[in-house]
Amino acid sequence: MTIKILMDTDPGIDDAAALTMAINDPKIDLKLITTVAGNVTVDKTTKNALKIVRFFNQSIPVAAGAEQPLFKDFEDAARIHGESGMPGYDFPEDLPKPLNKTAVEALHDEIMASQDPITLVPTGSYTNIALLFSEYPEVKSHIDRIVAMGGALGKGNMTSAAEFNVFTDPDAAAIVYKSGIPIVMVGLDITMKALLTNENIEKLQHINEAGQMLHDIIINDGDHSDKGSAMHDVNTIFYLLHPEAIKTEDMWVDVVTQGPAIGETVGDIRGAYHNGKTNAKVSVDIDDQAFNDWFMQEVRNIKM
Amino acid sequence: MTIKILMDTDPGIDDAAALTMAINDPKIDLKLITTVAGNVTVDKTTKNALKIVRFFNQSIPVAAGAEQPLFKDFEDAARIHGESGMPGYDFPEDLPKPLNKTAVEALHDEIMASQDPITLVPTGSYTNIALLFSEYPEVKSHIDRIVAMGGALGKGNMTSAAEFNVFTDPDAAAIVYKSGIPIVMVGLDITMKALLTNENIEKLQHINEAGQMLHDIIINDGDHSDKGSAMHDVNTIFYLLHPEAIKTEDMWVDVVTQGPAIGETVGDIRGAYHNGKTNAKVSVDIDDQAFNDWFMQEVRNIKM
Amino acid sequence: MTIKILMDTDPGIDDAAALTMAINDPKIDLKLITTVAGNVTVDKTTKNALKIVRFFNQSIPVAAGAEQPLFKDFEDAARIHGESGMPGYDFPEDLPKPLNKTAVEALHDEIMASQDPITLVPTGSYTNIALLFSEYPEVKSHIDRIVAMGGALGKGNMTSAAEFNVFTDPDAAAIVYKSGIPIVMVGLDITMKALLTNENIEKLQHINEAGQMLHDIIINDGDHSDKGSAMHDVNTIFYLLHPEAIKTEDMWVDVVTQGPAIGETVGDIRGAYHNGKTNAKVSVDIDDQAFNDWFMQEVRNIKM
Amino acid sequence: MTIKILMDTDPGIDDAAALTMAINDPKIDLKLITTVAGNVTVDKTTKNALKIVRFFNQSIPVAAGAEQPLFKDFEDAARIHGESGMPGYDFPEDLPKPLNKTAVEALHDEIMASQDPITLVPTGSYTNIALLFSEYPEVKSHIDRIVAMGGALGKGNMTSAAEFNVFTDPDAAAIVYKSGIPIVMVGLDITMKALLTNENIEKLQHINEAGQMLHDIIINDGDHSDKGSAMHDVNTIFYLLHPEAIKTEDMWVDVVTQGPAIGETVGDIRGAYHNGKTNAKVSVDIDDQAFNDWFMQEVRNIKM
Repeated sequence: MTIKILMDTDPGIDDAAALTMAINDPKIDLKLITTVAGNVTVDKTTKNALKIVRFFNQSIPVAAGAEQPLFKDFEDAARIHGESGMPGYDFPEDLPKPLNKTAVEALHDEIMASQDPITLVPTGSYTNIALLFSEYPEVKSHIDRIVAMGGALGKGNMTSAAEFNVFTDPDAAAIVYKSGIPIVMVGLDITMKALLTNENIEKLQHINEAGQMLHDIIINDGDHSDKGSAMHDVNTIFYLLHPEAIKTEDMWVDVVTQGPAIGETVGDIRGAYHNGKTNAKVSVDIDDQAFNDWFMQEVRNIKM
Repeated sequence: MTIKILMDTDPGIDDAAALTMAINDPKIDLKLITTVAGNVTVDKTTKNALKIVRFFNQSIPVAAGAEQPLFKDFEDAARIHGESGMPGYDFPEDLPKPLNKTAVEALHDEIMASQDPITLVPTGSYTNIALLFSEYPEVKSHIDRIVAMGGALGKGNMTSAAEFNVFTDPDAAAIVYKSGIPIVMVGLDITMKALLTNENIEKLQHINEAGQMLHDIIINDGDHSDKGSAMHDVNTIFYLLHPEAIKTEDMWVDVVTQGPAIGETVGDIRGAYHNGKTNAKVSVDIDDQAFNDWFMQEVRNIKM
Repeated sequence: MTIKILMDTDPGIDDAAALTMAINDPKIDLKLITTVAGNVTVDKTTKNALKIVRFFNQSIPVAAGAEQPLFKDFEDAARIHGESGMPGYDFPEDLPKPLNKTAVEALHDEIMASQDPITLVPTGSYTNIALLFSEYPEVKSHIDRIVAMGGALGKGNMTSAAEFNVFTDPDAAAIVYKSGIPIVMVGLDITMKALLTNENIEKLQHINEAGQMLHDIIINDGDHSDKGSAMHDVNTIFYLLHPEAIKTEDMWVDVVTQGPAIGETVGDIRGAYHNGKTNAKVSVDIDDQAFNDWFMQEVRNIKM
Repeated sequence: MTIKILMDTDPGIDDAAALTMAINDPKIDLKLITTVAGNVTVDKTTKNALKIVRFFNQSIPVAAGAEQPLFKDFEDAARIHGESGMPGYDFPEDLPKPLNKTAVEALHDEIMASQDPITLVPTGSYTNIALLFSEYPEVKSHIDRIVAMGGALGKGNMTSAAEFNVFTDPDAAAIVYKSGIPIVMVGLDITMKALLTNENIEKLQHINEAGQMLHDIIINDGDHSDKGSAMHDVNTIFYLLHPEAIKTEDMWVDVVTQGPAIGETVGDIRGAYHNGKTNAKVSVDIDDQAFNDWFMQEVRNIKM
């Protein structure tokens, strides 16, 4: 039985790797890709999503979404992901066209048309998802859960408080965390632990063309260190397939939308301030060796 | 030359009066009515809008919009407007159907199809408008201006800080005030001054059936006092037709989205804190006699 | 029976008038004057307080207090009160010395030594009072009530939300409103109504030397208009002596310490959000004719 | 040359250990101990400080300070530190008296009387320090630096955002971080790394009576785990003596005083949002082996 997902994304290097896994793993049924401004502008993230779809000769529809956050001024991450958002590899230029619908329209149509429960996988800021829930609240009962990259209990990467995806559109994140839909928070607490090792990055290029492509863009990751490179968004797909390798804790998570901690996900770690209620499963630990092994095997399994 | 407007509304007693004026004044071309939760639930505000359209035997399309604010919990004003939102008059029951589109879709389609500049007239909370601007930013350049009931420089009516429409969805209001579109704030500073006098309310019932209908609902206004009844939303239509009777000041207006002043419109009245920039024309005074005279004449002019 | 008060003040034009009344009215027993940065720096407000004491040949002790707000950056009101804070009259230069204690120490010592209940009358920002309550909580049970100029339910004078005294140190105001001590809020809602008329201002100079002094400084009020001049702080003394001329309402008042409404006093005017609890008597209306008559009579009664 | 310090503290188990080191290390000259509500009420923290002073037969003065935070409601940590705050050891009952001054007065007097530069070492909430700076700003220029336990860049211990000391009085912390005095933030980022190992805790009881006392209270630490026990406050003393064992980074730190992240110290880790300015040295790493070795050696060196 496959897991039916819709990905809302802003590729982005690790986003491209997440799309690669979601497209190629047979246990994942990726029905729709929507894009959002984030790592780079939405024009670029849409183009990048189409590049990945084209690279794997797929026909998964892509719909372009929000060009800016609900309220906060937009601040990209080109310092990490390069001007194009996905630098270092020469993708084909003959790209398919995006849908003639907005991301919100496409998400609505796909969700309402589906017979099966749907998992939403947002790996950029959550602007499209917040708009979807606000304009079409009827979709909520058709969504099984949200597995979202974003946030941190511990240290952020924009300020010590805030992680990039949530920081980009904190108002949208606040709406999503208040939506009542079960949400798995895949945040920096695990993604900064499960670095893809430099040894593995090196090996990627010798596996196949997909591995070559991933290698070429990953080595351009501006956050790359001598311990490896964080594959943030890929952890959502890993969680879908191997939840046993990620430890989660149920707690209440609030999103900070103002002040110096803007963009932070605050977990009520002691269960002291929300009458015992919880609204999220928060990833707190990961088997990073298992993540690395899985990542490499996924690439090896790709048939092109 | 007529003024082409789209009204986004939550009838509501004064909303019904505003719709009455907009529908019947020949200088106003009301192309679309969209509804939002506010005074009562969106099911009821939609039904009420349809009742007014039906009452005047019009075919103006009505589209139902947001059933709750973007983030804040919904709190209605049934204590003022009654359970139905428009009590006291027996409207026909054979109502037309709302459009098979959301308010946001309808607004988008109408705006993009129009050759002429459009004036948006939101008289409820601004949830639909915020969603419209966020999902379809391309509409912004087709909107001439927004003339919005809501807010106050002086005393509010929910707390001393906040007026009901902005209080209902402060996040939406913040998005609208940041949109860059010229906005005229028609707030409590003038609507609480331009009360429709009790003498005039009494007279309404003798003018014609429209006057009878307005009389019957206005006397149920929970905020009615011995000085008369505030016709909040009607002031937007009055402003469109008689801007000379309302004094405005250009200033920067921020919307408070958190804390005890949530829902307040804060005007930089001294021009001290925003580098001389302004984002709104704020109504600060009104000729209340002129408003009363105009209101009564509008009713007299109605041909049914 | 006299009313024993301690005034904490930042003269300032209207502050000087309030001191004048407090010093000279036999029903007021002014035991201590403490000063705070506000209209001008604390060096100047202290000097100005001493000038008034010296002018009336009194020996009321004066103690200098906080030179800046608890947290917010200091912003004076010299644009209203002139560089000196009390311009236009040549006061004697041979001033008494302030106490060799801080305002907080002097307030503490006076309150703890007193056998009678004490009324605190802060007419500047509340920095000293907040420090007093925080460092010496034992004084609270010796204070009968606080009658404080500051705040507004309606329009502010710094932004549309905030009045100057509370705006100057909102954190201190928040502490004072949370202290549990009965507080009468004498805000712009009444002080902007009870303007001293221009006719009365003109007459002042012909009454006596005190009237001359008040006239000479009041005509330098930067907020003076053709309707007269607001005697903000004087309303606290008027309230002490003539509570029947000021209408108050019991409600909960919160102070906004962050964001665009910073410095606002938010009244729960509908009693809807604090479980029926109240923490303040808020002045909502005043007999402005009675205020004017009293003001002039107070000046006439001064014997020097 | 000794380091002259004043400790402001709320013992508390780790606080008792910090006092033990500060009292007994000959390179530290502890001139004054002030107390504050925190782990337990100020009555208890004062008694506990006196117990430690008495235990070591010292005459260091102790002054009691704030019984509650400036604005936030007080919430103790008796669940961690026990009802008494320092359980498990029978201290002598014949305690010296605290000074007949408040903590703020004592700090002021000590600082102004000193010829040498002073280091402030707050290891509880910063209420006293904030009051000191606000009432007596003249002390600031006599303080060399503040070495303060509190805060976290990573995960907090009250919520995921907030550490206990800063959470207890965030407004006071905000004032201290804005004071302009050089501050070293000794937060959970290092104190949760430098756990005193269970092996060392076990050994403590065999060293001497001081070791016995520390052992007996540390084993009652409610946060004790199988990895050892965090000696939070002791890290301030370790930093004073061995700064080479703690890695710090200069950055701007803001304190969150409202909303879900209340009590968080937000570090501008990328130097992106404060024009390159910094206000704190933040401890980001520690040699935990060196800390353990030093801790045990300090106890061995104690002569009673």
